Amino acid sequence: MKLLQDTVRREGIVLNDQVLKVDAFLNHQIDPAFMLAVGKQFADLFAEEAITKVVTIESSGIAPAMMTAMQLQVPLLFARKHKSLTLTSDIYTETVYSYTKQVSNEITVSKKFLHPTDNVLIIDDFLANGEAAFGLARIVEQAEARVAGIGIVIEKSFQPGRQKLLDAGYRVESLVRIASLEKGQVTFVENNVMQP
Amino acid sequence: MKLLQDTVRREGIVLNDQVLKVDAFLNHQIDPAFMLAVGKQFADLFAEEAITKVVTIESSGIAPAMMTAMQLQVPLLFARKHKSLTLTSDIYTETVYSYTKQVSNEITVSKKFLHPTDNVLIIDDFLANGEAAFGLARIVEQAEARVAGIGIVIEKSFQPGRQKLLDAGYRVESLVRIASLEKGQVTFVENNVMQP
Repeated sequence: MKLLQDTVRREGIVLNDQVLKVDAFLNHQIDPAFMLAVGKQFADLFAEEAITKVVTIESSGIAPAMMTAMQLQVPLLFARKHKSLTLTSDIYTETVYSYTKQVSNEITVSKKFLHPTDNVLIIDDFLANGEAAFGLARIVEQAEARVAGIGIVIEKSFQPGRQKLLDAGYRVESLVRIASLEKGQVTFVENNVMQP
Repeated sequence: MKLLQDTVRREGIVLNDQVLKVDAFLNHQIDPAFMLAVGKQFADLFAEEAITKVVTIESSGIAPAMMTAMQLQVPLLFARKHKSLTLTSDIYTETVYSYTKQVSNEITVSKKFLHPTDNVLIIDDFLANGEAAFGLARIVEQAEARVAGIGIVIEKSFQPGRQKLLDAGYRVESLVRIASLEKGQVTFVENNVMQP
């Protein structure tokens, strides 16, 4: 997705070999026109999948998931993140480890909003180790719903998340794939839209 | 806003005299068509204000603020919530007390995204005591920007937030105003769109 690659080059700040700061357009300040283009792209990519629900995780996933759900004309459901939790019987919960923040979060979704008939598109802003995507997928599967695919705005392709998700049988579509952040530079994976 | 009143009546769950559960359409599962209508309404109400930026707070404010920013064709900025914080020089920070969760959060916004020339519309999902709205307003004013107004999806008019914000000189527009949640019933303030 050329627009997104251009935005990443122009607005992204490479903090080090592992971290790209995107708070100018993706996870703090958001450009709505840009986010609308992201939503359209995901809706196009998964147009044949008869998606019934878009699922994401607070907070940075909400904007791209909202725009995707609007294009697909289906509800959006965002999982809540908690440090710890008193378990109740009316929620699905999974533990997700964040390598960036080095903390485990419980993520939860109310049982009443996921059903076995649902065909779910998971959307997230970043893919690195795949922890969040796997956590969301496990919640969808707890509900006996189907994961139709996983849509990622920015994939750090030098980390193992994508391969782990593919190995587990999921369809993964990342709008931008970053091969490397070395030497303070963003290098994209060539032929960005191809599956490996 | 008739559509929103109908949705509140149909999908809202009155937990007690103080708490209305809206996780079916506003702060867990989200209906994009409904949220688009919310955004259009805010954009219409503040059309004359030459808004340059929409500011909200994670997580439930993001969806309505995103749709409002899209209609106004301006950037959205969402404040981050933290339990505690090492202060750094490049952020604005304010303390916001949540009566619901009985916890104080630091909310932060990066200085680089708010400027004295900004004319800011603050959007939030709920207004009760006004703590979050005041916290966001103080951050906007730290940046010497102007608060053009405050747009609220659901106002609990039996709590003091609205009056406190009006007394402080802010323009407040709430799409739905709830007079009471007593006896398990939602009663709306009559003539919903009027300022008191």
